[in-house]
Amino acid sequence: MKYFGHGGKGIVERILSSSEAKQWMRGLKRVSVTDRVARECIDLAYGFFTPLEGFMGKDDVDSVCEKMTLTDGTLWPIPIVFDIAEEEIKKQKVKKGNNIILSHNNCVLAILKVKEIFKYDKKKMEQAVLGTTDVKHPGVRMINRWQDTFIGGKITLINLPKFNYPFDKFWNTPRQLREKFIEKGWERIVAHQSRNVPHTGHEWLMKGAWFSANEDLPVEEIKTGILVSCIIGPKRIGDYIDEAILLCHQKLHDEKYFRDDIHMVSFILWDMRYAGPREALLHAIIRSNLGCTHHMFGRDHAGVGNYYDPYDAHRIFDQIPKNDLKIKPVRILEWWYCPICGEITYSGLCGHIKERRQFSGTAIRSIIEDKAKPSKLIMRPEVFDLLLKCADEYGFGSPFCTEKYLSKRQSVFLIS
Amino acid sequence: MKYFGHGGKGIVERILSSSEAKQWMRGLKRVSVTDRVARECIDLAYGFFTPLEGFMGKDDVDSVCEKMTLTDGTLWPIPIVFDIAEEEIKKQKVKKGNNIILSHNNCVLAILKVKEIFKYDKKKMEQAVLGTTDVKHPGVRMINRWQDTFIGGKITLINLPKFNYPFDKFWNTPRQLREKFIEKGWERIVAHQSRNVPHTGHEWLMKGAWFSANEDLPVEEIKTGILVSCIIGPKRIGDYIDEAILLCHQKLHDEKYFRDDIHMVSFILWDMRYAGPREALLHAIIRSNLGCTHHMFGRDHAGVGNYYDPYDAHRIFDQIPKNDLKIKPVRILEWWYCPICGEITYSGLCGHIKERRQFSGTAIRSIIEDKAKPSKLIMRPEVFDLLLKCADEYGFGSPFCTEKYLSKRQSVFLIS
Repeated sequence: MKYFGHGGKGIVERILSSSEAKQWMRGLKRVSVTDRVARECIDLAYGFFTPLEGFMGKDDVDSVCEKMTLTDGTLWPIPIVFDIAEEEIKKQKVKKGNNIILSHNNCVLAILKVKEIFKYDKKKMEQAVLGTTDVKHPGVRMINRWQDTFIGGKITLINLPKFNYPFDKFWNTPRQLREKFIEKGWERIVAHQSRNVPHTGHEWLMKGAWFSANEDLPVEEIKTGILVSCIIGPKRIGDYIDEAILLCHQKLHDEKYFRDDIHMVSFILWDMRYAGPREALLHAIIRSNLGCTHHMFGRDHAGVGNYYDPYDAHRIFDQIPKNDLKIKPVRILEWWYCPICGEITYSGLCGHIKERRQFSGTAIRSIIEDKAKPSKLIMRPEVFDLLLKCADEYGFGSPFCTEKYLSKRQSVFLIS
Repeated sequence: MKYFGHGGKGIVERILSSSEAKQWMRGLKRVSVTDRVARECIDLAYGFFTPLEGFMGKDDVDSVCEKMTLTDGTLWPIPIVFDIAEEEIKKQKVKKGNNIILSHNNCVLAILKVKEIFKYDKKKMEQAVLGTTDVKHPGVRMINRWQDTFIGGKITLINLPKFNYPFDKFWNTPRQLREKFIEKGWERIVAHQSRNVPHTGHEWLMKGAWFSANEDLPVEEIKTGILVSCIIGPKRIGDYIDEAILLCHQKLHDEKYFRDDIHMVSFILWDMRYAGPREALLHAIIRSNLGCTHHMFGRDHAGVGNYYDPYDAHRIFDQIPKNDLKIKPVRILEWWYCPICGEITYSGLCGHIKERRQFSGTAIRSIIEDKAKPSKLIMRPEVFDLLLKCADEYGFGSPFCTEKYLSKRQSVFLIS
């Protein structure tokens, strides 16, 4: 069965069986890649980035930066590039037309067919994609750490990632997700992106978006699910630990804060660029490749600091031609706790503007650090209990990333 | 400014100034009408029933019963008829072509231009409209009380109704409502029908429907209001008293359970037929004449007993041609109180099926009868306090209609 993804193209899958791979690999040069490039090889090969089949060449990067499309006109907001040190290219004598092996942590990962080796002005890329070259912006710092030379070309995965627990429970390729959606009978799927352990504000963001996605449907025809699609990638100190993010989302499901038949938890591998509106578009594209029909966007989606207006990521969807994206944005303002209403309510509805208590990550964090159980109207007690358990099991005692977690944590996946 | 209503016709307004009326009335025969007919004269003259300009003739009644349209093909589900005793017609020598004065409580109300005098099989009407002729059905009992002779013809109002407090605060003709919507800048208006003092289930029904009505809108373009449109008509023992229904809905507004700029309370005069799906259509038509763009329909809208499936009133909207109705149904299942979630939540979302507490009119009634304040998650405390105050001021001590209230209550309006 063929599934269609972004740009109307079939979902890309470029995976070689091990016997084929053995033949192919003979005599190839070998180049090692960073964590990010390894994650993006996996994304490319499984079609998360459909219609891309590999890392971009210069013309595509130019087109993405300047026009927010690939050279063929397909909407695409962020360059997907393989950066490599020039010395490495020289040392390995990598040439246009070569097939080379990409290895990660000394394991063979993928074959790259070198189509193009090029230089790119990273400042230009930063300005175009992030709207700034300010080194305080984490996306700028990330790109600044990249090498200045890039290789474009198609990727074929030759060893599949094996995910450690609990990631293995939540890993699904685009094809696997499509199959699960069919199994569940879902006809509309609303993506919820998360990098957090869910509080009730997140829960209601999902509930409100589900509600919105059904507005034109007769009751009997509601076959709509929520796909929690967590982003797993590099962590910063103070972030929630990855294991807790996934397991706590699943806890909301297991404890029936969501009906069993309308909610499922998964993740994607992605290194946040914090590119605000452009990144919102990319998230929408990836989730459309997963088979989602709707994508919720709350306040300051994929933003950081004050680089973007909190609703820039809402507005960008009005600026792109109507049929360029096969997923509907569901734009959401704020859910907050209102002590007068005595419940979580929505900024567009509740008039207790003075009394409202906005969800503050900092406030919730300090409650959690004190190990004081928050009100069940702020964080579900089962979620809080599990978060502390995850801290012990995976976080070296902390639910938040510490130096120790970052250096000693288990890998998300292994290549074998 | 011309406003367009159901069937694409301009909103009907058939009102005569008093000087014109004086001339016209000279020498006309006078016939007195029931409360229902008086209310429907007012509805007709102000355009609540646009495109109808008067009571239906036999062909229209036939067409409505058999095809659910007027003879010109316009969608219309319920006959709007003026029933009169045959003796009265004989006594007054009313003839086709006559203009006659309709009076109510001895006051001159309207002029009817007699187009047709006809008999109609009321059983046929009941079966077609209500789906039953069972005398346990209150709509059947209502029609059974009607006379067997009907007069069709256009209505012109010659004396305007003057509404007593608090009704005067909430009375708006279709034209006046349109003007208020323009003033408020509302571009989408979601109608909420009510015959109840609102509990939090009603409140969330409105909040959820507002949310649904905005799903495709960018944040800056949300100009959506909720019109609470109460139905004021004949009361049954045990119903909430009319004054409390209106004032308590307004209380939710005044106490900011709704933002000031998204919610307003009004009412229409209508004698419920309890016709389930057909009546849901009529309510939608009336609210489209008020300028509403959306109409929420919950469980068992306009139903009674077990005559209709609780969601028949949802399904009927799929059976009518797409452009026959210029108002979008927003179909809603149930909001309930979930003690695990600790809040009001939606049947489509919450998985605590065993623990849920459905809103039961009977349970809430018994709490109120005991004058025990319900939890603020069931009924807002300000609403409850006002309800008891209304009981004292308007209900002879009871928030529910008693024999005494029904016989001694103030009139909703006077004709002078």
